[in-house]
Amino acid sequence: MSDFTLPEESGYTRISFSLMDKQARKHIALLMEDEAKLTIRIDPAGNLIGRREGRNQEPAILVGSHIDTVRGGGRFDGIAGVIAGIEVGRRFEEEGIRTIHPLEVAVFLAEEPSPFGISTIGSRGMVGKLSPDLLSSLRDNEGRTLGMAIREMGGDPERITEAKRSSGDIFSFLEVHIEQGPLLSSRGIPIGVVTGIVGIVRGEIEVVGRNDHAGTTPMWDRKDALAAGAEVVLALEGVCKGLDGIVGTIGKIEISPNSLNVIPGTATLGMEIRSLQKSLLNQAISLFKDELDRIVKRRKVTINLKTKLSSKPVIFNSKMVGRIVRVCEKLNIPYLELPSGAGHDANHLAEITPTGMIFVPSKDGRSHCPEEWSEFENIGLGVEVLANTIIELDKEEAL
Amino acid sequence: MSDFTLPEESGYTRISFSLMDKQARKHIALLMEDEAKLTIRIDPAGNLIGRREGRNQEPAILVGSHIDTVRGGGRFDGIAGVIAGIEVGRRFEEEGIRTIHPLEVAVFLAEEPSPFGISTIGSRGMVGKLSPDLLSSLRDNEGRTLGMAIREMGGDPERITEAKRSSGDIFSFLEVHIEQGPLLSSRGIPIGVVTGIVGIVRGEIEVVGRNDHAGTTPMWDRKDALAAGAEVVLALEGVCKGLDGIVGTIGKIEISPNSLNVIPGTATLGMEIRSLQKSLLNQAISLFKDELDRIVKRRKVTINLKTKLSSKPVIFNSKMVGRIVRVCEKLNIPYLELPSGAGHDANHLAEITPTGMIFVPSKDGRSHCPEEWSEFENIGLGVEVLANTIIELDKEEAL
Repeated sequence: MSDFTLPEESGYTRISFSLMDKQARKHIALLMEDEAKLTIRIDPAGNLIGRREGRNQEPAILVGSHIDTVRGGGRFDGIAGVIAGIEVGRRFEEEGIRTIHPLEVAVFLAEEPSPFGISTIGSRGMVGKLSPDLLSSLRDNEGRTLGMAIREMGGDPERITEAKRSSGDIFSFLEVHIEQGPLLSSRGIPIGVVTGIVGIVRGEIEVVGRNDHAGTTPMWDRKDALAAGAEVVLALEGVCKGLDGIVGTIGKIEISPNSLNVIPGTATLGMEIRSLQKSLLNQAISLFKDELDRIVKRRKVTINLKTKLSSKPVIFNSKMVGRIVRVCEKLNIPYLELPSGAGHDANHLAEITPTGMIFVPSKDGRSHCPEEWSEFENIGLGVEVLANTIIELDKEEAL
Repeated sequence: MSDFTLPEESGYTRISFSLMDKQARKHIALLMEDEAKLTIRIDPAGNLIGRREGRNQEPAILVGSHIDTVRGGGRFDGIAGVIAGIEVGRRFEEEGIRTIHPLEVAVFLAEEPSPFGISTIGSRGMVGKLSPDLLSSLRDNEGRTLGMAIREMGGDPERITEAKRSSGDIFSFLEVHIEQGPLLSSRGIPIGVVTGIVGIVRGEIEVVGRNDHAGTTPMWDRKDALAAGAEVVLALEGVCKGLDGIVGTIGKIEISPNSLNVIPGTATLGMEIRSLQKSLLNQAISLFKDELDRIVKRRKVTINLKTKLSSKPVIFNSKMVGRIVRVCEKLNIPYLELPSGAGHDANHLAEITPTGMIFVPSKDGRSHCPEEWSEFENIGLGVEVLANTIIELDKEEAL
C-alpha cells in the first residue's frame, strides 16, 4: 500500500479523493475479491465495502477503517485496520469458517481532514449525517462540490440518504487501528482494548496588549501580548498536567506585528483539550479560565477565550469492551484498557451500533509522520483478537 | 508635513525614496529657503542640507534629523528635529544673531528601515560608511540599486565618498527628537538630555522539540517546542526585569507545524536586548543562556541561540551633555538625563564629531503609530534648548 504515495511529497501522502487514493482503493478492491473472496460494492457515500455472506440473513458484523492519509503521513494509520479486516475474511475462507452473520469489511471514505474541510466523510454518510445540502455546499479549492467528488469515487450523491445504515442491518462494528500514542509501545503491551474516544474542546484565545517600541519602553511599562501568551501556554499545560486523564495543547500561535523591534500587541492562540470524561473537560476549562483571569490582572492585558468546537466523549458499549478483554485473556495476549485520544470512524458508528476498537502499538508513539511504525507481529495479534471477537459475537442473539 | 502621507495607508506613511518622501523634501527645502534664508544643497549621499554662513570659515555646527517614516507611523518622529533646526535658523535671522560657525540643518536620507534593507542611509554616507560596492549591490523589490535610488533623490552615487565629513568641517552635531518612550511623559518633564544611545544585541532562538499527535500523546511524554518557547520568552523578560538599565524583547515567533491538533515541533523566536552599558548586555546574555540551559535540561528539547547583530552602545561626549544640562538650568527648564533606547542618525555622527541629543516627551510613550504625539509647547522648549546650546557652543574654541 505504501507504493500509492505522491512521490514529490516527503513521507506518505495519499490525500482523500486524489488519484493516489483512487488507485489504492482499486488495489484494495482486488485484494478483497481475490484474497478474501468478498463481494464488493460502493455505497452512495463512497465507502468501499466487501461482503461475505453469513449462514442467515442476519444484520452484518462490520469491520474496517480507512486508507487515506494526511500530507506527509505514515503507512499504518487506517491501513492496518482495513488489511486486518480483509485478512479475517481470507482466514475464514481458508479455514472454512462460516459465520451466522454476514461479515462486511469497509474502507471508509476520507477519514482524515479532506479538501472539503471536514473529515470522516464516509462514516458520517453511513450514520446519516451527510445531507444533500452539505454535498452541494462544501467545495474544494478547485470549486468541485463534495457531491461531485463522491461521485468520482464511485458514490451516488443523489441517493446519499440511502447510505444510512441502522441497527437493523449492522449487528456491531469493530475497528483495528494503530494507537498513535506511546502507552502500548512504552509498556511493551501488544493490544489495547479501547474504552472510548475522547471528547474535544477547541478554542481560540486572543490576548490584547499594546505594541510599543522595543527599545524605548521600559520593562515596567509594557503590555507584552506574547509574554502574556507565554503564560497562557504554560497555564494550559499546568492545568492538564495537574489532572489525570486529560491532555491539552496550544498548537497554534500568531502574534502581531511580529517584528523584532516592536513589543507584540496581540497574540492569537489555538488551544484544545481532550478527555474521555466530560467532567474533566469542564473542570480543566474552569481552572484554565481562573488562570487567564490571574494573567489579565497581573499584566493588564485583555484575554478573550472563544470556544470553536466541543465534541462529547464517546464511551464504548461496556459489553463489547468486556468481550474483547475476555478474548485477549483466552488467547493469553497481554492487553491494556485505554481511551483513544484521536477521533476515528468508530465515533460515528458508535451512534448506531455496539462498537469496539482494538489498538496495536505505535513505535515511540509516533503517527502522522513517515516514522509511523507498527510491528507486523503486533498487527497479527490484532487480527487474532479481531477474528476471535467476531466469532464470539457471532454466537450472540443480541448485544 | 502630515499632508505628505500615502492616503491608502492607515496612520502616516512616507517611506524613504517614495514619491511622498520626495514631495515632502521639496516642501522642506522651500521652508529652509523662504523662512530661514538657508542656502540649500544635496550632498552626494542624498542628504538635503540648508546652510547659514558664519562670521568665520569655521567648521559648521550641524543640526538635523529625518522626515521619512515607517509604514503607518506618526507625525513627529524625525520631523520634529528637522523643523526645530529650521526654526533655529529662522529665529537667528529674525533676531539678527550671526554665529561665528556656520549653521547647517540636515534632512538625513532614509533613517527608518528602507526598501534596501538598511536604515540611517544618509548619516552612514556622511561618516563614510556607504561604499560604491554597497550602492551597486543593495537592491529594492523592483531591482533598483541603492545608487540609482540615491541619484533619484538628488544625490550623486559616483561621488559617494565625497559625502564623508570630518571633524575638520563639522564642529558638533545636535539632534532634537521625540523620546519614543514614556519616561518624560509619565514624569511630566519637558526635556530629556540624552546621555548616549543603547547598544543592541539581536539573536534568533531555535527551539527543537518533537511534533506529536495532540490527542494521543500524554502530558508526560511531550517535547512541546511552544511550551519550551514560552519559558524562553518569560526567561528573557525575567532576566531584563531583574537588571536595571536594560530592556529585552521577544518580538517574533513562528512555530511548526502551527496546527491545532499537533504538538509544536519547532519554535523560532527573534530576540533583542538594549542597554547603554556593554557590561549589562553581556551579563544579560550570560544569565539568559543559563536559563536556556535549565529549560533544555527540564524539557529535553534543544535550544540554539544565534547572534544576528551586535552594536555597541554610543556614549555621548560628556562635555556636550554637561553643556545642554547647563542650558536647561539657565533657562529654568526641567530636564532628565536619560539614554536613548532607539537608534538615530546621531549614532553615526557621534563617530566623527561631539554629538548631543535633546528629547521632547512622547504622549504615553507611543511612537511608530498614528497616536504618536508631542505637545507643540514642549517642542518649542526643545527649540529653545537647541538654540541656546548652539549659541553656547559657538563661543568655544574647541570641544
